[in-house]
Amino acid sequence: MASQRTSWNVQSSTMAQSAHNPIRQIVDKLKLDPQATKSFISLSVGDPTIFGNFNIDDSANEAVIRQLKTFKHNGYPPAHGTVDARNAVASMITTPEAPVTADDVLLANGCSGALDMCVNVLGNPGQNILLPRPGFSLYGSLAEIRSLKAKYYNLLPEENWQIDLTQMESLIDEKTCAILVNNPSNPCGSVYSQEHLKAILAVAAKHHVPIIADEIYCDLVFKGNTFYPMASLTTEVPVLSVGGLAKKWLVPGWRVGWIVIHDRNDIFKASVREGLLNLSQVILGPNSVIQAALQDILHNTPQQFYQDTIDQLEKNTKLSMDAVSKIPGLKPVQPQGAMYMMVGIDVAKFKDIASDVEFSQKLLAEESVLCLPGECFTYPNFIRIVITPTVDRLEEAYKRMDDFCTRHLK
Amino acid sequence: MASQRTSWNVQSSTMAQSAHNPIRQIVDKLKLDPQATKSFISLSVGDPTIFGNFNIDDSANEAVIRQLKTFKHNGYPPAHGTVDARNAVASMITTPEAPVTADDVLLANGCSGALDMCVNVLGNPGQNILLPRPGFSLYGSLAEIRSLKAKYYNLLPEENWQIDLTQMESLIDEKTCAILVNNPSNPCGSVYSQEHLKAILAVAAKHHVPIIADEIYCDLVFKGNTFYPMASLTTEVPVLSVGGLAKKWLVPGWRVGWIVIHDRNDIFKASVREGLLNLSQVILGPNSVIQAALQDILHNTPQQFYQDTIDQLEKNTKLSMDAVSKIPGLKPVQPQGAMYMMVGIDVAKFKDIASDVEFSQKLLAEESVLCLPGECFTYPNFIRIVITPTVDRLEEAYKRMDDFCTRHLK
Repeated sequence: MASQRTSWNVQSSTMAQSAHNPIRQIVDKLKLDPQATKSFISLSVGDPTIFGNFNIDDSANEAVIRQLKTFKHNGYPPAHGTVDARNAVASMITTPEAPVTADDVLLANGCSGALDMCVNVLGNPGQNILLPRPGFSLYGSLAEIRSLKAKYYNLLPEENWQIDLTQMESLIDEKTCAILVNNPSNPCGSVYSQEHLKAILAVAAKHHVPIIADEIYCDLVFKGNTFYPMASLTTEVPVLSVGGLAKKWLVPGWRVGWIVIHDRNDIFKASVREGLLNLSQVILGPNSVIQAALQDILHNTPQQFYQDTIDQLEKNTKLSMDAVSKIPGLKPVQPQGAMYMMVGIDVAKFKDIASDVEFSQKLLAEESVLCLPGECFTYPNFIRIVITPTVDRLEEAYKRMDDFCTRHLK
Repeated sequence: MASQRTSWNVQSSTMAQSAHNPIRQIVDKLKLDPQATKSFISLSVGDPTIFGNFNIDDSANEAVIRQLKTFKHNGYPPAHGTVDARNAVASMITTPEAPVTADDVLLANGCSGALDMCVNVLGNPGQNILLPRPGFSLYGSLAEIRSLKAKYYNLLPEENWQIDLTQMESLIDEKTCAILVNNPSNPCGSVYSQEHLKAILAVAAKHHVPIIADEIYCDLVFKGNTFYPMASLTTEVPVLSVGGLAKKWLVPGWRVGWIVIHDRNDIFKASVREGLLNLSQVILGPNSVIQAALQDILHNTPQQFYQDTIDQLEKNTKLSMDAVSKIPGLKPVQPQGAMYMMVGIDVAKFKDIASDVEFSQKLLAEESVLCLPGECFTYPNFIRIVITPTVDRLEEAYKRMDDFCTRHLK
């Protein structure tokens, strides 16, 4: 039937309507006092670059400049990345336990782009995906735009945010397309032991559910902890591991991520590999010049750079734990890595703070300090603190939080 | 019901399966003769950078290097782009007839990423979208992964590839979510007159269907032709115009594209604007360092750079027209801009070439020259020639095509 429209009525698609970012919706409601005299301190954004104390290593920056000056890497790379760039990732990621080659790597537009492709390739509308609670809000958004049901498994704060495996297993059904595991974790700062990762893999193996391992914070772990790539601990479970330059190399704005396919029993061979290649064709991969510099960035950045990053994160974490554990009504959970600390709020101790969102709202309005409420991570009665600001900013922020909490105590 | 799976059976989603690139499937079948002694000449890839004769201007490259050296633009930009970068685009695009500001601009991962967002925001599964035939194959792929029906409107080679408006109008029905118009055109190299663009807009206005204007080849037009931004010719039809750095600035690998929202009657205000912002949140935009350099790239690249590009394209086009029109059995259509030339194949004149695909196959096998068959653009009995190779390569390619055609004539 021909068009009978008599006026303009153009609406956005249901997919676009569902593609909301829950953090943005919550943060939009938080308002700085326009009369505020105190300087604004943000402990809210997981971007280590904004305070000037975390910078990419000179050598990596120079590698990109060198490639720019050749004028030879401005054309379209293959959609899933150049062989050289994929090889640079593979040779960094491969282990005797979980060997991979360039053929197992796809580059993507940041780790978010990599996660998007993983969720898209494994999930059909009407299926479900298991996600961590608390967890990075993008996971839920990616599920929602694909009409996948997000089923949340619980992390246990009293057990260093390990997964409640019994509850997780109870969520698995015929329609479960994947289990997403984030280690080290945003927002928890937890780093899982080998034993715990194996226990997670055992559940996945028992029910034959593949794993998406968000390992963007790999290697950002503090003394006494070790990062184990999930795929190195299983011979059975197929794993899509995602990573990128954002955190370990401190350039989230460069938008370079990757997917590494760990599939020693050819379970993904039937169609998932091809499906990932198909998806990569739609938007094409990350910037070609940075792909050309990737070998240098990944393999020639001096070890001292990585150590300096971890030392600074660990120092800031210690400062944060010491300060926040002394603030009345707050109970921080010790991080073991990454860039975050979750802090429990004992709302019963406050006279006029009923929730994490209200805590964040009032802290911002009264003290010009912004922390994301746990609601952003589907986890009420906590706030997340980003521990990457400079020491003086952190100290000032915690002093103001102390004043704030003391003032609002019952 | 709990999972009853007893073995691994992991398939890619229907979306990933449908996300195929038709060009890849066709090109995979074309094989170079492994015994070939002639050097390989590709006239197939729409990437002007691969032969070394089209390079970004030094000043633009230096602008990026300058920003890299500040270490100040490595963090997450806002998902739809920084204000400065969006302002750089807006101030370049705005005209008195179609004024826009930074608020009307979203940055994206290349023009492909911009097109993906436009199709996603306007189309719901089950609707249809009008696409040009011949046309860029990504359009059909984007429709397919969204379960949108692609309805093809015909371009008329004998009328400089203008649209058959009667046939186009006959395709519009209640479920038509958008008309996609590509001007200047890939693969045709056509540039539409003001009158023709107004006639297209009149059909869109009559049926109240918004337009997606793929204007990535804007300004790449030859003497005697003018590029008119579609939005500058209507006060009524809402237009999403997409563009990027790929072609005019000769850096397709940099993956910087944009959407400009032209919506003077607030038809997109109800939800399309918000929908585009939502979609931008999922993957985030292009590289932050290039965003920081965008003002310099767009506004301080010397005019001579643009003129040199067009001069070279026009010279190569003239050379190509002169050479190919003398080859028996081939009939090139005069391009007016962009980087492409469509060439009709009179299969009746050949003794053993039954189609464009067979023409491309045999030409590659026998002469090591690759042209994409029209089937890649849903347009049989034509081939597309990319006219950006160096003059010596073009001359050699056309000499071989002449030998080839002469040899296969009836």
